[in-house]
Amino acid sequence: MKQSVGAKTLATPTPVWLVGTYDESGKPNIMTAAWGGICCSQPPCVTVSLRKATYSYAAIEQRKAFTISIPSEEQAAQADFVGIVSGRDVDKFAACGWSAVKSDLVDAPYVQETALVVECRLLQIVELGLHTQFIGEIIDIKADEAVLGEKGYPDITRVKPMIWDTAHRGYYGIGTFLGAAWSIGKSVSTG
Amino acid sequence: MKQSVGAKTLATPTPVWLVGTYDESGKPNIMTAAWGGICCSQPPCVTVSLRKATYSYAAIEQRKAFTISIPSEEQAAQADFVGIVSGRDVDKFAACGWSAVKSDLVDAPYVQETALVVECRLLQIVELGLHTQFIGEIIDIKADEAVLGEKGYPDITRVKPMIWDTAHRGYYGIGTFLGAAWSIGKSVSTG
Repeated sequence: MKQSVGAKTLATPTPVWLVGTYDESGKPNIMTAAWGGICCSQPPCVTVSLRKATYSYAAIEQRKAFTISIPSEEQAAQADFVGIVSGRDVDKFAACGWSAVKSDLVDAPYVQETALVVECRLLQIVELGLHTQFIGEIIDIKADEAVLGEKGYPDITRVKPMIWDTAHRGYYGIGTFLGAAWSIGKSVSTG
Repeated sequence: MKQSVGAKTLATPTPVWLVGTYDESGKPNIMTAAWGGICCSQPPCVTVSLRKATYSYAAIEQRKAFTISIPSEEQAAQADFVGIVSGRDVDKFAACGWSAVKSDLVDAPYVQETALVVECRLLQIVELGLHTQFIGEIIDIKADEAVLGEKGYPDITRVKPMIWDTAHRGYYGIGTFLGAAWSIGKSVSTG
């Protein structure tokens, strides 16, 4: 018999992504987001949800673009910092010792120091309540050569993305490999 | 200098969730989904994206509801199996040795054997292309007492949710604790 925990956003796992934007003056900014995910394979799309109060919200609306820089577990302190302060008050790139790279495909900057980045063109805005969902078409994925593995795709064990634990507000790394897809399930009988 | 990997759905991490539905005859079904995430805090909302070709697609449209059962890493084989076969052909609950529990809040079933489940009322449908995004309002979260931790919330180290590695098609567990939110970032200077 399961217990009711209430109508809370406790689905898990959720990512730790840094959303990159330019403000109206052209200043680059990043903010940490855990409300997001991939939402379509063709066209390849990803979503991030932001509160209207954030500095990044207006930036995405105006520039019709955003990036996602995916920090590694070695960058947990910076990723946390980026979620604590506002781009209105602080140059977060400078504080982290990071460089903003202007995407040559979309009107938004990404973090040079994160090994994996996603460049997105704004496709759709979905108003939901406290958060607004921005759906972006993935125009390109860029990665440092050091994290590329088989097929030239990013190797998750080198990218070392983080997990956001919303229930107890902390960060976790990626753990052990559990098995290959469309393979380990074959042990289950269809009767 | 980063390398272009192409316009692919390689953002990471993504979840491993089992979407629960009733078909038109009332037969319970589940399917594995990795395209999804939390998308709003108030009202609490979560998204899953499905292809029109799936058996679950029509079920959500008709019943205006779905659940998310979150498998643990010990359930990796079943979670993989559920993503291999179609509910048109196979009773996936029976094959996994799992029981379908009828939600008393929404018109959808969840998996008794997964320790954490999310009950959702369909709020919005967003057509994107190959995938359609279903946005559900979280009506309740239910959990086995064994996985509850501080504040009565699910403890991620007991729930042991899985990560889907889309780049190389495999499953990973949750790794080490990296730090507390709004805390480890304070080491970054704003000065």
